Amino acid sequence: MKLLEEKIIKEGRIYPGQVLKVGAFLNHQIDVPFMNKVAEEFYNLFKDEPITKILTIETSGIGIACLTANYFNVPVLYAKKSKGINIGDDVYTVQVTSYTHKNVSNVIIEKEFLGPDDVVLILDDFLANGCALEGLLDLVKMAGARAVGCGIVIEKAFQDGGTRLREKGIRIESLARIKSMDVVEGIEFID
Amino acid sequence: MKLLEEKIIKEGRIYPGQVLKVGAFLNHQIDVPFMNKVAEEFYNLFKDEPITKILTIETSGIGIACLTANYFNVPVLYAKKSKGINIGDDVYTVQVTSYTHKNVSNVIIEKEFLGPDDVVLILDDFLANGCALEGLLDLVKMAGARAVGCGIVIEKAFQDGGTRLREKGIRIESLARIKSMDVVEGIEFID
Repeated sequence: MKLLEEKIIKEGRIYPGQVLKVGAFLNHQIDVPFMNKVAEEFYNLFKDEPITKILTIETSGIGIACLTANYFNVPVLYAKKSKGINIGDDVYTVQVTSYTHKNVSNVIIEKEFLGPDDVVLILDDFLANGCALEGLLDLVKMAGARAVGCGIVIEKAFQDGGTRLREKGIRIESLARIKSMDVVEGIEFID
Repeated sequence: MKLLEEKIIKEGRIYPGQVLKVGAFLNHQIDVPFMNKVAEEFYNLFKDEPITKILTIETSGIGIACLTANYFNVPVLYAKKSKGINIGDDVYTVQVTSYTHKNVSNVIIEKEFLGPDDVVLILDDFLANGCALEGLLDLVKMAGARAVGCGIVIEKAFQDGGTRLREKGIRIESLARIKSMDVVEGIEFID
């Protein structure tokens, strides 16, 4: 998505360690008029699927999930990162490793909100090592629902998550795929 | 908002300790088609104000903030609950006490995203003791911006936050105001 690549170049900031900050439009401030165009792109990519629900994970997937759900006229379900140890029987739980935060979290959804009749589009802001997406895919499987694929705003394609998931046959639609990024050289995208 | 009161009665669940769970449509699953009507109501209430930005706090305010921002065609800024102690100089920070979680968090926004030219609508899912809203109002003041008021989906009017803020002259628009709630007696709203 050309507009998105231009937005990343204009408003994103690269920090050492291949950190990309996009708080100007995606995950602190949300540029809603712009992100609506991103949402429409997800709609165009997945509109032929009989989607009943959009699944994301707190926090930074919620905005784009709601804007996209508007086009599909379906609910959003966001998985919660539970810190509690006393998780009830009424939830599905997966463990997700965060390489950024160097920890493992329990990620949960309440069972009553996802079931065998659901056809799910998974959305998230970033795809890097793919652990969050794998967790969400596992939750969909535990619920007996069907995932049609994953929509990603920005993929760090120099990390292996996207490749690993595509090799498993998962449909991954990333609207901007970063081939390389560097404080000095800037960002290069995969066409 | 009659439709919202009916939704709360139909899909909300009351637990001991005056806990209201609305994960079916507001803060776990987000019923986007329905919440769009809530967003439109906020738009109708505040459309005469020259709003440039909607401010909320993670996590459960983000969905309704994005849907409402769609009507105003403005960005959303969500304050983050920082766990870190090494907060940089480029943020405004307030401390917010959570009676639910029995702790004090630093709540931050990056300075570059809010300034003297901004006219801010604050949105949140719940208003109870009012501490989160007071924190957001303080952040607006620190940034030199102007808050036109606060839009709240559900106010627990039996707690003192709403009264205290209204007495300070803050415009608070709560779409459902709960007068009392009880596992046996159910919910009573203020008309």
